[in-house]
Amino acid sequence: MTESSTTSTGLGFDLIKTDGMARRGRLSTAHGDVETPAFMPVGTVGTVKGMMPGSVRETGAQILLGNTYHLMLRPTAERVAQFGGLHKFMNWSGPILTDSGGFQVMSLSDLRTMNEDGVTFKSHLDGRRHHLTPERSMRIQHLLDSNVTMCLDECTPFPATHEVADKSMRMSMRWAQRSRDAFVERPGYGLFGIVQGGVYPDLRADSVKALTDIGFDGYAVGGLAVGEGQQMMFDVLDVTTPLLAADRPRYLMGVGRPGDIIGAVRRGVDMFDCVMPTRSGRTGQAFVRRGVLNIRNARHAHDPRPLDEDCRCPACREYSRGYLHHLFRAGEMLGPMLLTWHNLTYYQDLMADLRRAIEDGCFEQRAAELEAGLALGDHPALPDPLNLKAAPETDKSEEDSSVAIDL
Amino acid sequence: MTESSTTSTGLGFDLIKTDGMARRGRLSTAHGDVETPAFMPVGTVGTVKGMMPGSVRETGAQILLGNTYHLMLRPTAERVAQFGGLHKFMNWSGPILTDSGGFQVMSLSDLRTMNEDGVTFKSHLDGRRHHLTPERSMRIQHLLDSNVTMCLDECTPFPATHEVADKSMRMSMRWAQRSRDAFVERPGYGLFGIVQGGVYPDLRADSVKALTDIGFDGYAVGGLAVGEGQQMMFDVLDVTTPLLAADRPRYLMGVGRPGDIIGAVRRGVDMFDCVMPTRSGRTGQAFVRRGVLNIRNARHAHDPRPLDEDCRCPACREYSRGYLHHLFRAGEMLGPMLLTWHNLTYYQDLMADLRRAIEDGCFEQRAAELEAGLALGDHPALPDPLNLKAAPETDKSEEDSSVAIDL
Repeated sequence: MTESSTTSTGLGFDLIKTDGMARRGRLSTAHGDVETPAFMPVGTVGTVKGMMPGSVRETGAQILLGNTYHLMLRPTAERVAQFGGLHKFMNWSGPILTDSGGFQVMSLSDLRTMNEDGVTFKSHLDGRRHHLTPERSMRIQHLLDSNVTMCLDECTPFPATHEVADKSMRMSMRWAQRSRDAFVERPGYGLFGIVQGGVYPDLRADSVKALTDIGFDGYAVGGLAVGEGQQMMFDVLDVTTPLLAADRPRYLMGVGRPGDIIGAVRRGVDMFDCVMPTRSGRTGQAFVRRGVLNIRNARHAHDPRPLDEDCRCPACREYSRGYLHHLFRAGEMLGPMLLTWHNLTYYQDLMADLRRAIEDGCFEQRAAELEAGLALGDHPALPDPLNLKAAPETDKSEEDSSVAIDL
Repeated sequence: MTESSTTSTGLGFDLIKTDGMARRGRLSTAHGDVETPAFMPVGTVGTVKGMMPGSVRETGAQILLGNTYHLMLRPTAERVAQFGGLHKFMNWSGPILTDSGGFQVMSLSDLRTMNEDGVTFKSHLDGRRHHLTPERSMRIQHLLDSNVTMCLDECTPFPATHEVADKSMRMSMRWAQRSRDAFVERPGYGLFGIVQGGVYPDLRADSVKALTDIGFDGYAVGGLAVGEGQQMMFDVLDVTTPLLAADRPRYLMGVGRPGDIIGAVRRGVDMFDCVMPTRSGRTGQAFVRRGVLNIRNARHAHDPRPLDEDCRCPACREYSRGYLHHLFRAGEMLGPMLLTWHNLTYYQDLMADLRRAIEDGCFEQRAAELEAGLALGDHPALPDPLNLKAAPETDKSEEDSSVAIDL
């Protein structure tokens, strides 16, 4: 491990225990602590879709992620600031991390033009033109009152040649310096740098060096989970996390599925975010200890069992698979609400499980048990005592009851 | 008032206090008591849309309404029975009233043919043919384990000639006798008859007489809130409720707006149901002590005030109008969830207010105060400190986030 060379003391981080490369830590912010490894539910535009903030807290979540791109367009950062910042606006008293806006500009907006200064784009909502620079991103995240601000960077696409990845990474490093310069330090708030460099070990090493020389409160690994596959993602982590400052938190952006998270914790990652549990929950996919299942499948219609017999969430404690299936077939809001609640609970319980295993010095054993469980697959279907045909899907003549997708 | 001539003792009803025609009572069922006057939230297909059952209970609701038409089609009454009845299926331990299915057959299904035996129709979901008779409706509601079963009747359309209303009512009375004959009595469960007769006092009187001769656990006034207007509805109540058994509960079906409910309680009605608070909540309409408001309006974007400063619900205690406006503009599920919660809380608080006033012998005074409040209209708009243009609506390229409408 490299020596730490962070220059900021805005965010506290205690490394409590290590087990192999896996780390048990605690991030301290002006809005409270975060036990790591931690999973951050995504609250794109100031709400974790379909959940009351108190329910998100009940799942065990301690920190949320907000999307700068969405919030700058609607309701605008200035409006959020008028209401006292994002915590007050959305009634979440815990820590908040915001991304820089760069990723969604590239994936969602129209007519992007990027140069050394920043990126100009048209809003996907109303076509209005916006300009995002490192300085503007810092200002927006300040207005949002984000506890963890992310540097503006370019998420290098996959695949990219060494030359393209190099050039893209070097601009991101210059933007990282500008982000650092523009960031307003205050106690309990901090700025994370983002390692880029594609799948190339030398570029990842150069990026870590550049960021470490600048000095940040934490280091994110960016440009992964963009189509490269789990093994290549792990390969990049293998050559990146050992170079990162040991005394600063490490955040793997946009990851992932349960198996991705276990593998990344094994490689020394402390923080995660992903739309997977919330987005999948809204479409009927449930993450359970035996893998994944789709509650819309006809096999669940007559099934009196819970989604996951070991889960403590309301969807599992109070409802049958048959009822949850019915809600999705009927297009009822309560279906997405309950499956989101379940999936977020599952993710938080997974993180708590990993944290305990690191504390107990048995990470590899527990990780192997969890991975074996995920490989089992769902219980065999039960016979239908009524032998009824599957319930009809909500027909097209009814008002569409689909729910919004995290962008 | 007429003497009571009920023959069934399946449901208890205590008339605790009267104040003018207004009545303070208590309905007792196998699943608990209901303080009246009571408002029943609508849980069409086994869920009050957008609400957890525990949250519905928190609003003060003691009894829910389920729709036989929807449930018989999906997931089917037999499926609900497999799961132990509707209470267990949907995790609502309190009393449940189900309608007979007749109203929705007429308003929703295709290719209806009605004769003395019953009504044949095609499902609006998948086009399959179904036959609904008084006997089948009783059987379905039994399978659902409904505490309050409603007779199958024909909801006479408005306007209807005296001849049409007469003929329709007489068939409903024959169906009421068949419903009574088919209903399986058990303690804590009961059957309500439904008064028909359009806007004609003589027909309403004949209908009351026919039902009273049969004898029911309670009496509903049907065929109102179908376009006749509030005054005509009140006129029908004026000639109907005085004829109803004083010792049995009275239920005005499908009503209504807050002013309708106050006026109907004044005329001796004990029970109400309506999709208004839930359906309106999903489209952004909030019922408040000063009338109604639409949270989508731009005037709310910068407003830090609660929807209703006197409301105890989470939407009012924990969020600004500006945040709720943002949720609706962004098409977020939490908007409909919070406004539904608010509207149901408002309705339940209105009922509690009316119950207290009857107990205290000051119904007319309190009703006048409430009506004066409703006539005030919303507070004047505040100036926007940022002077921003309204947030854009969710664009069409995003996944539609609209939510299903109660049918």
